[in-house]
Amino acid sequence: MHLRISGPTPLPPEVVAASAKPMIDPRSPESVAIFREITNDLKELLETTGDVFLMASTGTGGVEAAVSNVISPGEQVLNVSCGFFGDRVGDIAEAFGAKVQRLVFPDGDAADPKAVENALQQAPDTKVVMLTQHETWNGVVNPVEEIAAIARRANALVLVDAVSSLGAMPLRMDPWGVDVVASVSQKGLMSPPGLACVAVSERAWEHVERAKASRFYFDLRKAKRVFKYTGLSPWTPPVSLLYAVQAALRLMRAEGFANVFQRHDRVAALTRSRLAAANISLVARKPEWASNAVTAVYVPPTLKDIEGLLKLQREKYDVVFTGAQMKGKKPSLRIGHIGHVNERDMEIAIDLLDKSLREHGWDGQPYTV
Amino acid sequence: MHLRISGPTPLPPEVVAASAKPMIDPRSPESVAIFREITNDLKELLETTGDVFLMASTGTGGVEAAVSNVISPGEQVLNVSCGFFGDRVGDIAEAFGAKVQRLVFPDGDAADPKAVENALQQAPDTKVVMLTQHETWNGVVNPVEEIAAIARRANALVLVDAVSSLGAMPLRMDPWGVDVVASVSQKGLMSPPGLACVAVSERAWEHVERAKASRFYFDLRKAKRVFKYTGLSPWTPPVSLLYAVQAALRLMRAEGFANVFQRHDRVAALTRSRLAAANISLVARKPEWASNAVTAVYVPPTLKDIEGLLKLQREKYDVVFTGAQMKGKKPSLRIGHIGHVNERDMEIAIDLLDKSLREHGWDGQPYTV
Repeated sequence: MHLRISGPTPLPPEVVAASAKPMIDPRSPESVAIFREITNDLKELLETTGDVFLMASTGTGGVEAAVSNVISPGEQVLNVSCGFFGDRVGDIAEAFGAKVQRLVFPDGDAADPKAVENALQQAPDTKVVMLTQHETWNGVVNPVEEIAAIARRANALVLVDAVSSLGAMPLRMDPWGVDVVASVSQKGLMSPPGLACVAVSERAWEHVERAKASRFYFDLRKAKRVFKYTGLSPWTPPVSLLYAVQAALRLMRAEGFANVFQRHDRVAALTRSRLAAANISLVARKPEWASNAVTAVYVPPTLKDIEGLLKLQREKYDVVFTGAQMKGKKPSLRIGHIGHVNERDMEIAIDLLDKSLREHGWDGQPYTV
Repeated sequence: MHLRISGPTPLPPEVVAASAKPMIDPRSPESVAIFREITNDLKELLETTGDVFLMASTGTGGVEAAVSNVISPGEQVLNVSCGFFGDRVGDIAEAFGAKVQRLVFPDGDAADPKAVENALQQAPDTKVVMLTQHETWNGVVNPVEEIAAIARRANALVLVDAVSSLGAMPLRMDPWGVDVVASVSQKGLMSPPGLACVAVSERAWEHVERAKASRFYFDLRKAKRVFKYTGLSPWTPPVSLLYAVQAALRLMRAEGFANVFQRHDRVAALTRSRLAAANISLVARKPEWASNAVTAVYVPPTLKDIEGLLKLQREKYDVVFTGAQMKGKKPSLRIGHIGHVNERDMEIAIDLLDKSLREHGWDGQPYTV
């Protein structure tokens, strides 16, 4: 099966083998050593001297941990969004009582730093700027470095949902001035889903200490205290997923983090050039906004039945894509090229996509949507 | 290694093999089929026609999902506790704004239903009674059926933390009138940690709909809506752990749920009789309060260095116990006999415990603590 979705990604054999190791006491010295290795690797990957916490949860839970630890009911935050996952960061802030100003960009557009600057000038008591690095629903990447610089000038914390970007592209926390980052195991980290990580800068800690949003499972104050005294998490960690992520990070270190990013760049560039050659329309409106993790494409408008198309791909061609979700509701689908992936994988996938579109009634000619 | 802790438990080979299956699209028909099978099995195990939800989380997260979905800030709840995990249910309710009345029983005592009745008479507007079925820290089981009957007479919901009891002893939700139950994968369900489940009775739903505690990741309103329309969870499920729990439940069905409970009864009875024969003191003060999942014992008071003892056991005897935690701070340890366990496992474990205590300086004579 060619699993070409935004995650879970196919697992390297080393990760599968590691996941199958016997259970251990999660409070044992072996467990402490695994926590130390993974958190140190993630700090290096994120280029931060801050803290990294691991928790049993999906990416959404990781984002909730990030958000609920830096806000208080009634506090003003700015949610910068270029898609449904971007909106979700703001939804979480709202669920925990923050006053959310929403700055929303249309399908295929990355966030415009100037618009962020204007929004912050109009709401000068904004405490946190929240955004996704990569909008998984449409494959658009936001200019995190520029937006972080603007937020810091306005004395706001910078919170980044890196669920589908970590490991696929640089997220330079300390050099860029990013304060809180959430991510998860089943994307760039090439592991099964269920282990989230949250990184917190030095500067963010005073916010965490005084934040008044309700939290318990995701309370990072407790996580920090317990890690300090035991080297572990407050709650039982998902042991098999720790094994998996440890093995995946070892593979990434062996390849070199910079080489991992470059491989993603190459694979994504090949994906886009093959799609263009096949006359398939990209969602990302400018090349510099297209992500190297996921490519969303508009389906020819003559093909109405996306579910039928995905089924044909799955059952006849053994390739799995997923629908994309556009605010404009234009029919679209997503092609994952994140994690354990190389150029040959994508050549195969794009060929199968092209075949299945033609079999589903497309004439192969360029189309507008 | 003899892993004799309260969880994760050793994994059956079928569970290990299932966990290693390739990743799939978590929104695919295969994923829907797995969700359906697991939730149906859990409904049967819990004897409920209510809803069962699965989420990537530890047991603590499952308990937070249970609690935060039925309380509103300022509402009165009763927390019945016979140990630190019992207290934690109340801590979570407090973190989400409830007014918590605490009814606490000393080390080794189960909750007294009469005391619960009195507490409810004194606080007649109590909305929820919260307790653990099994206190994992000291191996004591609460009389859930009796307490549930009392709570229902007082028109309060009954919320049970069944983290370390599900699969090891009956928890008859509908027949006993239990409304909300939380549990997790790495105990009676013989799987790696990281998949929590929450069951909700029909009667509890109106509380869930009007509960005002902050929640997003653990919001069961959304979980119910998404399950209804897709047969899935709102967030990416931990795929490898779904595989594991599916395989474990198949093993349990093949053995028969009633037989699984009886095996736990036999193994626990053997454990206690071997401990008594070896002059080792139990924490549970009455036989009917002792759990069939974990047995906590007081260590001879002459042996001060519990950490050293656990290390000796681990390094020389290849057997892993964990410390227990008593409010009276008396030195103690815990012996797990839950999940994938039989009589022979416990004969070996108790022999090794006895040997290690003697090597650590105990003369084998009865002691009082």
